[in-house]
Amino acid sequence: MTPLTSLELKYDQVKVPILVGPGALGAAAPELETWWRERILFLLTSERILYLLAEQIRDLAQAAAAVIPLVVPDGEAAKTVPVCHQVWEDMLRRGGKRDSRLLALGGGTIGDLGGFVAGSFLRGIEFVQLPTTLLAQVDASVGGKTGVDLEGGKNSVGLFYHPQRVVADTRFLESLPRAEVRCGLMEVVKMATLLDPPLLDDIEKNIPALLDGDLEVLSPVIARAVAAKVKVVTEDPKEKGPRRLLNYGHTFAHALEAVERYEGLRHGDGVGYGMLFALRLASRRGLDPALGRRLVELIRGFELPPLPATSPEALWQAMTRDKKATEKGLVWVLPRHLGEGRMTADVSREEVLQELETFLASPYD
Amino acid sequence: MTPLTSLELKYDQVKVPILVGPGALGAAAPELETWWRERILFLLTSERILYLLAEQIRDLAQAAAAVIPLVVPDGEAAKTVPVCHQVWEDMLRRGGKRDSRLLALGGGTIGDLGGFVAGSFLRGIEFVQLPTTLLAQVDASVGGKTGVDLEGGKNSVGLFYHPQRVVADTRFLESLPRAEVRCGLMEVVKMATLLDPPLLDDIEKNIPALLDGDLEVLSPVIARAVAAKVKVVTEDPKEKGPRRLLNYGHTFAHALEAVERYEGLRHGDGVGYGMLFALRLASRRGLDPALGRRLVELIRGFELPPLPATSPEALWQAMTRDKKATEKGLVWVLPRHLGEGRMTADVSREEVLQELETFLASPYD
Repeated sequence: MTPLTSLELKYDQVKVPILVGPGALGAAAPELETWWRERILFLLTSERILYLLAEQIRDLAQAAAAVIPLVVPDGEAAKTVPVCHQVWEDMLRRGGKRDSRLLALGGGTIGDLGGFVAGSFLRGIEFVQLPTTLLAQVDASVGGKTGVDLEGGKNSVGLFYHPQRVVADTRFLESLPRAEVRCGLMEVVKMATLLDPPLLDDIEKNIPALLDGDLEVLSPVIARAVAAKVKVVTEDPKEKGPRRLLNYGHTFAHALEAVERYEGLRHGDGVGYGMLFALRLASRRGLDPALGRRLVELIRGFELPPLPATSPEALWQAMTRDKKATEKGLVWVLPRHLGEGRMTADVSREEVLQELETFLASPYD
Repeated sequence: MTPLTSLELKYDQVKVPILVGPGALGAAAPELETWWRERILFLLTSERILYLLAEQIRDLAQAAAAVIPLVVPDGEAAKTVPVCHQVWEDMLRRGGKRDSRLLALGGGTIGDLGGFVAGSFLRGIEFVQLPTTLLAQVDASVGGKTGVDLEGGKNSVGLFYHPQRVVADTRFLESLPRAEVRCGLMEVVKMATLLDPPLLDDIEKNIPALLDGDLEVLSPVIARAVAAKVKVVTEDPKEKGPRRLLNYGHTFAHALEAVERYEGLRHGDGVGYGMLFALRLASRRGLDPALGRRLVELIRGFELPPLPATSPEALWQAMTRDKKATEKGLVWVLPRHLGEGRMTADVSREEVLQELETFLASPYD
């Protein structure tokens, strides 16, 4: 039996306990019960997850005054302003008050939506993250980034707003499709590459077991990735310095998602390709060729689905609309050594377009 | 020439300079120019205000990379989620970035909307409040409360999010309709009653000049009301203690506005009636009858428009949906002495309904 890992994200007035591992939900039950006792508990989730987990949550939430499901679409379709509007109206109509509670039960999209909805309902009510996907457990649920999409860009509306608690029960991953596991692992590879090289070694040795979702191997990897994320968020909560390293692979990924209107590749797969593209830019700037090769092969090992057909110009347009662009231009995160990344704005439009041209044709070269 | 008053709202990491008086905009010009220099400046305002002030702002904002007007409806119609959505999409489409700026130029509704829009665009961009109405200058622009309305309740979606600066140029009030002046003065009466009794004496002596919008009399009254607000917000930024005193008159006012779907009485007039209703509850709980009478007569002096016809039951329903209600019940702010208020949850549904019955028929008795 893999033990549970207890972490804490702590800075200024923020203090978020995080529990990771198989059975974390049961272990956190006493704290959760105190938190929702005699309160209205809004359960933000999707129809599919409600079907799978509603009974378990209801059993757990008997101390709440009422458990009110707020059902939103699966995936990125949940992250829109009109969905927020409908959820807010529902919450008010169903008696939501300042001391009501919200539980975000689902993947990264539910967590992102839930944080924004909770953070701005009546100027902020408390919420808890109960991530059910690997991606949400290792990345999205930790760090206080919340938000929804606009037509021109992902996560363009949102807040820094922390949950009261994150409970990442890795047992939820048992029913997770292989593609979702792969996507979460891409974020783990991202963090390991720039923040925790020994974790990268472990991943490299265990790709098949990880992709199979073997909890014995996966749970400790998740716990270490969360620990790496907690560390960097603590150092830089508002993403003005080192936290920006977590954007490794994301400039490309967000652009691809925008071009595909969030219906093409999954986010994690996009991050995989984004890291490959960043490695290409890094190799032009002195990255050790052996390391570059190793990182490319590592990503190849995860067998990403093929890149959708798109044009360099369309991607470039979407990149310049990315919210992480400043009025001064695009900033890229590039690996410099293992465990060390850097930010650079010194990549011209011409270079990006030219590299995209060859990259889109053969991304692993 | 009335001198300008310089104040500062300061707690934790919040530090908001506030400049009040005739000509404040000109005096703040150097700081504003530095703030928007070479940035995209979004000018959130209404068509009417744009017509009146656009030229002045454009002259002032020549250092900005671009001045992009975001035109929203006048009044409460601006404070909706769909308007936010449209403004956010516009901002992104027009090239808005994390280092872009937003100027909220208008009354309280523009300031409330502007703060929410700025606070959640790309997880928060900087904004400045340039309030053009008395109500916005004395109250809405200071203290970081931002938000929009839902069908069931005013300000039900929003944030605590402070502007970088508040510039309250009282010259803007020269073209303000008398009804708007009266509404702003109701908030001043509210603050003076519970926070600054000497200010209440001054108001009492000068009602006609204040209602006429005589800047010589009005500007210092505004500055003192803002100072009172700054003090109470500094003591209690998140409205968990004394700041809740500012809710005096508002439980009734918000309910009336909700029942009238924000199209009946103006907010300030509603607050006037709300104070009258609170005085009635306070008089049943030991408020000195002479003081009660004095406060009722003071409000009568402002010649509020008649109360719209409504029912006690409809108002009660709306009150229980007010965001300041907790799951434990409604909290009322009642004056205890001059300069001293208290919060009480000890008013039964029956008492409220019974008092409303007689109050709606003759509010000044």
